[in-house]
Amino acid sequence: MRLVSIDEGEHGACGALLADGQILHLRRAARRDGIEAWLPGTMRELLAAGPDGLAVVAEVIARAAHPGERARLRELGALLPPHARLLAPVPRPGLVVAAGLAYRSHLAEMAGTPAPPYPTAFMKSPHSIAAPGSAVDLPAAHAECVDYEGELAVVFGRRCHGAGRDEALDYVAGYTLANDMSARDWVRDVWSAKTPWEARLTWEVNLMGKQFDGFTPCGPALLTADEVPDLGALHLATRLNGRLMQSAPLSDLIFDLPATISHLSRWYTFEPGDMLLTGTPAGVGVGREPPVFMREGDVVEVEVERIGVLRNTIARARPGQ
Amino acid sequence: MRLVSIDEGEHGACGALLADGQILHLRRAARRDGIEAWLPGTMRELLAAGPDGLAVVAEVIARAAHPGERARLRELGALLPPHARLLAPVPRPGLVVAAGLAYRSHLAEMAGTPAPPYPTAFMKSPHSIAAPGSAVDLPAAHAECVDYEGELAVVFGRRCHGAGRDEALDYVAGYTLANDMSARDWVRDVWSAKTPWEARLTWEVNLMGKQFDGFTPCGPALLTADEVPDLGALHLATRLNGRLMQSAPLSDLIFDLPATISHLSRWYTFEPGDMLLTGTPAGVGVGREPPVFMREGDVVEVEVERIGVLRNTIARARPGQ
Repeated sequence: MRLVSIDEGEHGACGALLADGQILHLRRAARRDGIEAWLPGTMRELLAAGPDGLAVVAEVIARAAHPGERARLRELGALLPPHARLLAPVPRPGLVVAAGLAYRSHLAEMAGTPAPPYPTAFMKSPHSIAAPGSAVDLPAAHAECVDYEGELAVVFGRRCHGAGRDEALDYVAGYTLANDMSARDWVRDVWSAKTPWEARLTWEVNLMGKQFDGFTPCGPALLTADEVPDLGALHLATRLNGRLMQSAPLSDLIFDLPATISHLSRWYTFEPGDMLLTGTPAGVGVGREPPVFMREGDVVEVEVERIGVLRNTIARARPGQ
Repeated sequence: MRLVSIDEGEHGACGALLADGQILHLRRAARRDGIEAWLPGTMRELLAAGPDGLAVVAEVIARAAHPGERARLRELGALLPPHARLLAPVPRPGLVVAAGLAYRSHLAEMAGTPAPPYPTAFMKSPHSIAAPGSAVDLPAAHAECVDYEGELAVVFGRRCHGAGRDEALDYVAGYTLANDMSARDWVRDVWSAKTPWEARLTWEVNLMGKQFDGFTPCGPALLTADEVPDLGALHLATRLNGRLMQSAPLSDLIFDLPATISHLSRWYTFEPGDMLLTGTPAGVGVGREPPVFMREGDVVEVEVERIGVLRNTIARARPGQ
């Protein structure tokens, strides 16, 4: 299943993509009885309901293929066109953790950073989450070095702490896309840090360059985990104004997702709806010679087959922002 | 005013401490008309209402001093005893940022760490927020080096991004207390890091030792900003099993709060209900010779006059946690 959050209210309305591209507004499909007696209002409600909730939604999607049911849904206003406005699949996650230095190819371009001995990760502000299709503002004071990082993102479906490698994927509801945008004004300070003290200070500020509002567009859909039998076979691509900038299979990850989830869950607790961004492959703008940074009017796209295309435009910084 | 979140439902019920120690349950005090026609259900609703909302609550508190109104409130069940169970003042903040290396005296004890050239800060997982009075579990696999850090915490009342120093405090709704608990298993790796690369890796893991569930107890009350005319005059104390471990005035901060808020808001956007922990003074357990770490049954208290005492007990790690 491909699930979405329709742009309606603060938390969005949970929807599902149908085979013909239309979007099924789940709450509007409700009946007084039958399996449609329970349908989730929001993505969070659906995730909280666990496998039983997903099974109900799968059945409702299957029924929507029948002409009679299709007519009923149309009458209820439960069928939205493919271009309906969406929010991020989880519009307000409680916790967003982002893996760094995760792809072999990305390390090589980042001033030859060595491979870390274990999965590394930092947090992103939940306020940085933005909708697919949204215009992301360049920060007024730091507009010159804004970079993209296309990433696959895990959405948790169950509370996950201290997970073993073998069971780590059992906690995953599904996968979406994220663009881990970064203002790179401070990355050269990281590369030139000479002492442990300088490294600590510069790394922290560098990570703050990822915390601006709107700097984590996500979407368009959440592809449920049952539809991803082989994570390593997924292929991630990022395009800037149509030009292919990043292209890598998930198998280029130094640590696979079970290892990363297991490691991070020693410390973090992931709740349903929380997200883990899994890192970015080679091809980011700062790693190019000359560097390529985003400008007003640019269109950036992150794509993984079946999850879809996460497309965002870059907007001019507004005064006073 | 001293505002609290009463332990009722997922988001708590907004309450106010009365002069006699009783807790006024604001939603239960509502009437169909008069100023009590609007009273907030949760702390978030109150913060979202801004100064007008605070003015209404102040008036309702003032009226509660009159015997007739007191009788009405008692009849409505709107007066709770002083020992009623509370949640953290903001039970589920969207963003929790914590200043590090903030007090002069704390730097001296942390292996002589130099003063940073600007305010430094990291994020804490919102899932680490815990209630005043709660028992905090030692993590099963990392139970041996759990330390306290008593801190004053800012709660934002307005959206804050790019704030100037002069206006920074205008965004603050009030102040509460926090215990920035840390599993210190990894701090010696930070101190022994020899290269910039080692520093970056070890610092990240060290910060992960602060992300365990329950590792940020907060409360007991939110003291509104209007009642704190001189931040530097506040005095913070931390006690472990009654023994004074930390004792410092806020004037020992290297950067005052306006400077810290202004600096961090260049990157972060703080929304109403978001929190900034302002750092800890000298006296943490890991800085002592021999180190003092917390054990099952310990009672840790953080106190600032008028905000109250944030008291938590330390509990045994549960198997499988």
